[in-house]
Amino acid sequence: MRPVCLLLVGSFLALPLVAAGQPRADSARILAVMRKSAADWNRGDIEAFASSYENSPDILFIGRTVSRGYAQMLAAYRKHYASREQMGTLSFAQLEVQPLDEHFATVTGRFHLQRTKAGGGDSDGYFLLVFAKTSHGWKIVRDDSTELRHTDR
Amino acid sequence: MRPVCLLLVGSFLALPLVAAGQPRADSARILAVMRKSAADWNRGDIEAFASSYENSPDILFIGRTVSRGYAQMLAAYRKHYASREQMGTLSFAQLEVQPLDEHFATVTGRFHLQRTKAGGGDSDGYFLLVFAKTSHGWKIVRDDSTELRHTDR
Repeated sequence: MRPVCLLLVGSFLALPLVAAGQPRADSARILAVMRKSAADWNRGDIEAFASSYENSPDILFIGRTVSRGYAQMLAAYRKHYASREQMGTLSFAQLEVQPLDEHFATVTGRFHLQRTKAGGGDSDGYFLLVFAKTSHGWKIVRDDSTELRHTDR
Repeated sequence: MRPVCLLLVGSFLALPLVAAGQPRADSARILAVMRKSAADWNRGDIEAFASSYENSPDILFIGRTVSRGYAQMLAAYRKHYASREQMGTLSFAQLEVQPLDEHFATVTGRFHLQRTKAGGGDSDGYFLLVFAKTSHGWKIVRDDSTELRHTDR
């Protein structure tokens, strides 16, 4: 009986590890999306950067006003970041993924946009993002980014 | 055959209506939580106000720093809003519920806290909340509130 018992014990022990492994795998995938989005931005590729968001008219951007929609987001990014200098160099810090369930997670963190004075100056702040697991992978569906500091260098 | 056909047509038509009805019912429940939380606050009942949040160590408050936990939230509210005058009168505007699925929704809106100068002055801002459908009803699990204006009257 010993091998069977060991097998059973082994199976029971394995279950929570497998269950805990999925959120870790999802967190790693979400962090990879964040890393890719900064790399896309810093290459000057707004279309690739935008692909971190769900291509849906329902996605939301929360600030003084609420704006919505993938197409509208892309148009706003193209308008406000028309040149490589206006895009500057984007970096994230203190990134933390907090799963809600297997379909949704939030990400909190800090952003830093380094730009020349001509490009618009530096910008610092923090954000809360809601990610959804879509058929195209984890995508941002809500973005509440708050600027704390703007420096015209 | 006519009655059966009508029944089938009726069933197909009914399905989307039922499906669309659930989000509307959930939106109404979530808006009721928001109304109750403001009423609880304006009655000076911080415990009742706090019950709009999930009683969990995992809930998050996003600002310059990220803080977490129901007990910590309650302690912070008790410290910063120790008197009826410090609590003032809370109101929400432009409330919008945006369902994510049947288990999660986000709420965006504006807050206005009316207070005497001695109470700390007025405060205005906006927020993104993530609500989760729990066994105790819809509860806030993420709160990103941003102050836009603070007026010491």
